[in-house]
Amino acid sequence: MIVAMQEGADEALIQQVIEHLVKMGFEVHRSTGARMTVLGAVGSGIEIDIRNLELLPGVQEVHRISSPYKLAGRSFRPEGTVVRLANGIGIGGNEIIVMAGPCSVESREQLFTTAEAVAKSGAKVLRGGAFKPRSSPYSFQGHGEDALKLLREAGEKFNLLVISEVMEISQIPPMLPYVDILQVGARNMQNFNLLRELGKVRKPVLLKRGIAATLEELLLSAEYIMAGGNYDVILCERGIRTFETYTRNTMDISAIPIIHKLSHLPMTADPSHGTGRRDKVSPMARASVAAGADALLIEVHCNPDKALSDGAQSLFPEQFAKLMDELRIIAPAVGRKIV
Amino acid sequence: MIVAMQEGADEALIQQVIEHLVKMGFEVHRSTGARMTVLGAVGSGIEIDIRNLELLPGVQEVHRISSPYKLAGRSFRPEGTVVRLANGIGIGGNEIIVMAGPCSVESREQLFTTAEAVAKSGAKVLRGGAFKPRSSPYSFQGHGEDALKLLREAGEKFNLLVISEVMEISQIPPMLPYVDILQVGARNMQNFNLLRELGKVRKPVLLKRGIAATLEELLLSAEYIMAGGNYDVILCERGIRTFETYTRNTMDISAIPIIHKLSHLPMTADPSHGTGRRDKVSPMARASVAAGADALLIEVHCNPDKALSDGAQSLFPEQFAKLMDELRIIAPAVGRKIV
Amino acid sequence: MIVAMQEGADEALIQQVIEHLVKMGFEVHRSTGARMTVLGAVGSGIEIDIRNLELLPGVQEVHRISSPYKLAGRSFRPEGTVVRLANGIGIGGNEIIVMAGPCSVESREQLFTTAEAVAKSGAKVLRGGAFKPRSSPYSFQGHGEDALKLLREAGEKFNLLVISEVMEISQIPPMLPYVDILQVGARNMQNFNLLRELGKVRKPVLLKRGIAATLEELLLSAEYIMAGGNYDVILCERGIRTFETYTRNTMDISAIPIIHKLSHLPMTADPSHGTGRRDKVSPMARASVAAGADALLIEVHCNPDKALSDGAQSLFPEQFAKLMDELRIIAPAVGRKIV
Amino acid sequence: MIVAMQEGADEALIQQVIEHLVKMGFEVHRSTGARMTVLGAVGSGIEIDIRNLELLPGVQEVHRISSPYKLAGRSFRPEGTVVRLANGIGIGGNEIIVMAGPCSVESREQLFTTAEAVAKSGAKVLRGGAFKPRSSPYSFQGHGEDALKLLREAGEKFNLLVISEVMEISQIPPMLPYVDILQVGARNMQNFNLLRELGKVRKPVLLKRGIAATLEELLLSAEYIMAGGNYDVILCERGIRTFETYTRNTMDISAIPIIHKLSHLPMTADPSHGTGRRDKVSPMARASVAAGADALLIEVHCNPDKALSDGAQSLFPEQFAKLMDELRIIAPAVGRKIV
Repeated sequence: MIVAMQEGADEALIQQVIEHLVKMGFEVHRSTGARMTVLGAVGSGIEIDIRNLELLPGVQEVHRISSPYKLAGRSFRPEGTVVRLANGIGIGGNEIIVMAGPCSVESREQLFTTAEAVAKSGAKVLRGGAFKPRSSPYSFQGHGEDALKLLREAGEKFNLLVISEVMEISQIPPMLPYVDILQVGARNMQNFNLLRELGKVRKPVLLKRGIAATLEELLLSAEYIMAGGNYDVILCERGIRTFETYTRNTMDISAIPIIHKLSHLPMTADPSHGTGRRDKVSPMARASVAAGADALLIEVHCNPDKALSDGAQSLFPEQFAKLMDELRIIAPAVGRKIV
Repeated sequence: MIVAMQEGADEALIQQVIEHLVKMGFEVHRSTGARMTVLGAVGSGIEIDIRNLELLPGVQEVHRISSPYKLAGRSFRPEGTVVRLANGIGIGGNEIIVMAGPCSVESREQLFTTAEAVAKSGAKVLRGGAFKPRSSPYSFQGHGEDALKLLREAGEKFNLLVISEVMEISQIPPMLPYVDILQVGARNMQNFNLLRELGKVRKPVLLKRGIAATLEELLLSAEYIMAGGNYDVILCERGIRTFETYTRNTMDISAIPIIHKLSHLPMTADPSHGTGRRDKVSPMARASVAAGADALLIEVHCNPDKALSDGAQSLFPEQFAKLMDELRIIAPAVGRKIV
Repeated sequence: MIVAMQEGADEALIQQVIEHLVKMGFEVHRSTGARMTVLGAVGSGIEIDIRNLELLPGVQEVHRISSPYKLAGRSFRPEGTVVRLANGIGIGGNEIIVMAGPCSVESREQLFTTAEAVAKSGAKVLRGGAFKPRSSPYSFQGHGEDALKLLREAGEKFNLLVISEVMEISQIPPMLPYVDILQVGARNMQNFNLLRELGKVRKPVLLKRGIAATLEELLLSAEYIMAGGNYDVILCERGIRTFETYTRNTMDISAIPIIHKLSHLPMTADPSHGTGRRDKVSPMARASVAAGADALLIEVHCNPDKALSDGAQSLFPEQFAKLMDELRIIAPAVGRKIV
Repeated sequence: MIVAMQEGADEALIQQVIEHLVKMGFEVHRSTGARMTVLGAVGSGIEIDIRNLELLPGVQEVHRISSPYKLAGRSFRPEGTVVRLANGIGIGGNEIIVMAGPCSVESREQLFTTAEAVAKSGAKVLRGGAFKPRSSPYSFQGHGEDALKLLREAGEKFNLLVISEVMEISQIPPMLPYVDILQVGARNMQNFNLLRELGKVRKPVLLKRGIAATLEELLLSAEYIMAGGNYDVILCERGIRTFETYTRNTMDISAIPIIHKLSHLPMTADPSHGTGRRDKVSPMARASVAAGADALLIEVHCNPDKALSDGAQSLFPEQFAKLMDELRIIAPAVGRKIV
């Protein structure tokens, strides 16, 4: 931490700040120039609200130097993390992994038809909601455990792994037998109790960025999971809230290369939620791969017009097939492949 | 709902849209002009994603007319709601209620000293965190039930009601014996499972706006609680996230008169979280009252420099006393009083 | 400026950064601790893009310490600036000055009727647009110099000073004989050529914050004017663009106390543009005064329903009179008065 | 326009609204259902502020149906516009055009070295600033007409067309002899006087989206230029301001497919300003092409470390060469090519 004193700050004020820092456990380095004094405070594991230092008399500015996350930071594993799934698949490696399927599991027929289609086009993971968080209390809320069983069955039939969203701690145990990846939705990105529990699980977690979360906050949330011992965290960009209302959210494609710089964790993109409109999903999926995404999460529905939720952002199976072909052209431009 | 057809849309396309609406349960009114046809679709309790209609061929635009919330809407109780608390206090009536106290309950001494001070200055409700959601996994997480007991005891001693934050469903039963108002934090505004459980409780709930939530979303979350039968919902503005980084959040004071127009529920302001800096708390508290706030929620600490959390945004007791005096001057300008 | 080196940075890298800084003209202070080295770089008047330093090998972070504005900063005039107008009126002093009038000057009758009403209620300055920047090319664009003459005439008749917006350099000379304050609109806040010209003028300038401008950028724009020798700059908050769409803009009331801390310049609030809706103007005007605004800028129209522009956000004269009475109650809470 | 009356609105109120609309010049279609009445108002060329209708008694909501821009709308030229430049080059056609060069023209050597490099890698247009708008009054402000001459000379030598930014009306005549495309910067997107003048010019204009501008506002600004008779408008995304501060701006890649749907005008992306950091430029350039951009605008400098402005976001010539190779792989995925 760096504390810059005001230009006129006298020795008494400087000593007072130094004592304050030492009392907190920091080692302090002082640099006094003709016009200003700067204090460097070093210490690991010291929890501090820098606003308290800013309020001390004589202090001009305070800057945190070291990032507040450690396990999630790039320096923890400079070579990058490949999250290993069953079937020898890895997210973060040379192959770009596509996860696809309906927003909600609605029926056996709907799920199996869709699963067959996405598997044929090259998806490796089947997505599908069992528990649905909805902003209106009067909406369809998901089929729960029945949906999980169907996902597992469809996954086995079409050789797909399974990802589904966990919404609260009590859902973790019933989900574990059925899913290969536990997904944390944008609204739960800072549900710290849930994150702490997921740190005790030994299955990969896909953590979505909240619509108002900075990338630093996303990494701090990943840190919560990793601090519990679960290092298999996959991050995901799915749009942030801005003043532009044409799309539901503004998909922040630049988050992909930024996360790759700040962190060793793999980075996924969800263009379905990122745009909220079917006709924008393919362009943004292509853009994500071109920007370096390690994986994609895409909503596909065998009959989007009849979908119980989010049909408007679900691709038709043929659109998905066409998109996969386009992605296969793009992948080599970033030294990757899609099988 | 209003569906505007494209200028050139022919009769077949129009009929197709009408049939679609009728099949969904709507009563359809048609208005055909020289250049365009407009369809009005009326029906209550029909859940619909308007994006699906926008994707139908020939459709230019779709607008929802009725608001998606009903119980929370002004028309449900045009005269406004006064949430009755114990001691004959009401939030939403002629008196502006001030809730004050420390961010976290740290010790008996800290709490009692602070409680005595805020009671003396005119606060009617004691605030204090027992369970603390923190963005870093390495921070102080609160004293739990011990803190709740202290809050109750201090409240009784200084004739203050008690408000504290509930973070997950499992905390509701242990909190009920101790608190008069259950507070839902900004991060949980769309934790729909929690909201649903709070709908079954028979104690007032103070619901904070999420940092990226629109006012419509805030009212939809209130609707979740009210749909369960608990109509004693108090709303609260505590800052939204914008591009301006000087303050932690940008406190949206205009939310106060807007909520009063859209809803019958009382509206509170939290200038401590709304600004994040002690020296901005009093100006924003005054602004909130001048804009018509029914209540305030303010962090006060007997010794902010030693606070375990949010000391930088906590007022000193003397600052709080001075603020209360200023508020007593302002209240009559909006036809209110502070006792 | 503070440059924090990475933990493992070796002596060669550190020397390289020091040389780089010295070559740019900085005096460098070095502080080396067990784990990290921090460089403090001092030097005035050195223009620098800190991103260039961030890209040097071995550098972890760079922070600017001194604010990039000098003349606009609080330390330039710690006692605060009172901008003196004709008639002995000052903005920034004990009296809160209210500027009111129609969005556009439409006709003699409209202007004089409105001017008489606002003067009677206590306004000291008459506002009115002569040149109108409109977002559609098909809208009313203002009456130009004729409007300026009417403003001057009405001002003299009802003992009001005159403020009007200048949109481009060529309008400055024709405006000077007619106005007492030149207003720069939000869209021109970073029209640096215009600002530079206004620095040569010897009349006060009211500078509005752009809808996407940070407060630092607002102060930098004030610096442009002041660098030319015109120190009579009045700042103005009029709403920023956020994700909330219920109001046109989100009025950032906290900008008022923040500007008072960062700068010595007086701070005005424009609740008409800040909200865009007539029924929100009075609450936000009251909030602005309660938060410490030095002046208000309010749209009033003798017949808002017939206004050629912005009628929806213009107060009726009776609403304005009632508001002034409310403001007179509030002003003493912040140690001010409205005559 | 659609006016939805409140549920209980009686016949007198409805008639009043109808009369109001008729007086404004609209043809009104009425649709009365069991519960609500909806009025459709049709009329072209009628300028209206819908907030005035919203304030009429009995009115619940008002929605504009037709888009406020006409010439810029897709329906004006459904097949899309190819803006023809000299040398037979077109923007909006099958070939993706890359415009590259330094932020500012600093010297003959700097410009010619850079121009040679970008031409060799496949750029077709040379960019370079002659007049520099800077947020600090103490920064380098550009070499003016001398820079324009150098641009023309370098363009002719290396077979590149020339684009440069125009900042105010007075700069248009001196620029015309030297440039092939006039660029309007983000800060001038709503400088309507400038746009109107550019409507009289017979050279293509590249119009950048403001950092707080919606896409509708961008198209309205294009309309200003087109309304003057200049239909050769090229739009450009260069990042919007959001709460995320890691990058200077958040580049809104989804603007590319959205503009292609709403408008016939070609859409360009500027990843240099869109990210502000050299290491993010290539990923975002690739993403833009993958999302369907018609052209790119990229800052390249022969020696970025010595650049007088924006060196931190300028590519080294070798980075640019590598990027062009990557783009050549991606283009076929969207049915395009880069020669």
